[in-house]
Amino acid sequence: MSNLWSPRVHELKPYVPGEQPKMARLVKLNTNEHPMPPSPKVVAAITQAATDSLQLYPDPESTELRQTLADYYQLSIDEVFVGNGSDEVLAHAFQAFFQQDKPLLFPDISYSFYPVYCGLYQVTPKQVPLDENLAIHLQDYEQANGGIIFPNPNAPTGQLLPLEAIEKLLQKNTQSVVLVDEAYIDFGGESAAKLVPKYPNLLVVQTLSKSRSLAGLRVGFALGQQHLIDALVRVKDSFNSYPLDRLAQAGAKAAFEDEAYFQVGRTAIIKERERLTQALIELGFNVLPSAANFVFASHKTQAAEALALGLREQGIIVRHFKQPEKIANYLRITVGTSEQTDALLAGLQSLL
Amino acid sequence: MSNLWSPRVHELKPYVPGEQPKMARLVKLNTNEHPMPPSPKVVAAITQAATDSLQLYPDPESTELRQTLADYYQLSIDEVFVGNGSDEVLAHAFQAFFQQDKPLLFPDISYSFYPVYCGLYQVTPKQVPLDENLAIHLQDYEQANGGIIFPNPNAPTGQLLPLEAIEKLLQKNTQSVVLVDEAYIDFGGESAAKLVPKYPNLLVVQTLSKSRSLAGLRVGFALGQQHLIDALVRVKDSFNSYPLDRLAQAGAKAAFEDEAYFQVGRTAIIKERERLTQALIELGFNVLPSAANFVFASHKTQAAEALALGLREQGIIVRHFKQPEKIANYLRITVGTSEQTDALLAGLQSLL
Repeated sequence: MSNLWSPRVHELKPYVPGEQPKMARLVKLNTNEHPMPPSPKVVAAITQAATDSLQLYPDPESTELRQTLADYYQLSIDEVFVGNGSDEVLAHAFQAFFQQDKPLLFPDISYSFYPVYCGLYQVTPKQVPLDENLAIHLQDYEQANGGIIFPNPNAPTGQLLPLEAIEKLLQKNTQSVVLVDEAYIDFGGESAAKLVPKYPNLLVVQTLSKSRSLAGLRVGFALGQQHLIDALVRVKDSFNSYPLDRLAQAGAKAAFEDEAYFQVGRTAIIKERERLTQALIELGFNVLPSAANFVFASHKTQAAEALALGLREQGIIVRHFKQPEKIANYLRITVGTSEQTDALLAGLQSLL
Repeated sequence: MSNLWSPRVHELKPYVPGEQPKMARLVKLNTNEHPMPPSPKVVAAITQAATDSLQLYPDPESTELRQTLADYYQLSIDEVFVGNGSDEVLAHAFQAFFQQDKPLLFPDISYSFYPVYCGLYQVTPKQVPLDENLAIHLQDYEQANGGIIFPNPNAPTGQLLPLEAIEKLLQKNTQSVVLVDEAYIDFGGESAAKLVPKYPNLLVVQTLSKSRSLAGLRVGFALGQQHLIDALVRVKDSFNSYPLDRLAQAGAKAAFEDEAYFQVGRTAIIKERERLTQALIELGFNVLPSAANFVFASHKTQAAEALALGLREQGIIVRHFKQPEKIANYLRITVGTSEQTDALLAGLQSLL
């Protein structure tokens, strides 16, 4: 604390990311990274970009990458915004759309960065409770609001909303931005990107950190009609005109151009998720139905915190949230390789 | 414009970066990039990082890079903050320190992103005029303020303040943060980094975009006592916990480890700047004394705007600011290679 700080900075409650331990040989199932490396074409594109004019500023508009994303999602380039990870895209969206008189609605159990952004940008949050099965009911969001944001599938529950439910909300909620945060959509859901041409208040945010195996590169993007993208660009160009470096632009573009690699990777995760889910059920866990690259599981008799600590002693890291209380007995376990699943299951067996 | 935007977004006046033309074969002297590529060791470090765990999140604290910078400037790691370009570092600093009741002081002719940040973060600006020689007089900043920021050397004038003048200001101005923006310091000035242990309200910001030939990588940093760095970290962790990707962390670290390459590059620029300055004077220009990798020059008889347009027709791009009026007859010309200087001088000769 310091009297030199802006007064509001004292009140910030920063986000706490999942641990990135520096020890080698861990079974790291705590931050939902993809276990496969990125496509070799991504590595080749980055290597090429590293030897090509790194002394010059990058394209501030990331034109080539945005065109690639536009083509992929059948939108126009003016309907695509890119940022330094989807966290930066979300932060800009909070500033661009959610500083309103009415509160921003989001699930009480959700991405824990949302309340942090509210603190940073003086957005009034109004948390909407999940139901008793830890599911989002979008009818609960049909109330006065200055914006709505939710992940689909939700994190950390992994539960998916069908596109029809989102479309119903969009038909009723037309006067504020509805932001669908699709960090995990590629592992089992249908993207709301196809609804963008129809709904002027829909913004879809995705990341390359999960299904594209590029958490280490920091690229995320938003899809929405041009008048929404324009607001994000205004904020970006008032913050940092060049958020994506040359390597990130080149690598991200190459990732979206290698569809075959992407399909292999996500299919492997979906298959492994089913195996992990079954095995956890057999070990006495309740496992929420997941459309993500993680499962959210609660053991019938053993406390989650003790299990997380016990696994940790064996070099296996999963994520346990002490708060809020209604999820305090759950573990969020990333779907890794078969070998990682085997190690996790063996670790759990020794504890149970 | 859209009624879905946050009201304040309508009022933003975003920064306009220097043009990044996509045509090849231009003599590009408009955005103060270094004409040399980065050190081969930087490229090697990036290539290595690209093949090493890009599917995993980067270290959110950029520990290795910050330690390298701390060692270089003889500070502790807790006195170093890194960001996605110095623009991001500056943006966070505006939010962390300058949201105060009293106005932020900065030169009326200076980095044009400062008033943009003021708009983004509702900081009240108070611009302090340069003197008749376009120089900063730090005595003019001895007045009530909620913070002081200036580049040293100043941009776009290139003029340097000696460290003694900055220290005098720090002795008198103790109740608000003094931010010295040293984007160009390596081309002829003495960094205020050595004053950090002595002055608790001093923050020094630098970039790797200029003297380290890494504009395309987007890395900047701040040096200051820990209580200031803590505020920046609070803002960062409320915005984007992982602002620097794995490649940027690795490349930036390697750049600071190759001191010999750095010295060769900056020495070449300083030498070329002297040649360019002399030649411009011989062509009838007034050239401000520059400690940066650019010169700021006004021709005695020819209008700057016409010269800029005439050069452009020959494929030579320099920067001309139409506003404010007192610099409207100046050109800001990046110091490039000898060949680029030759092309520029030939181009000017044909116009004069």
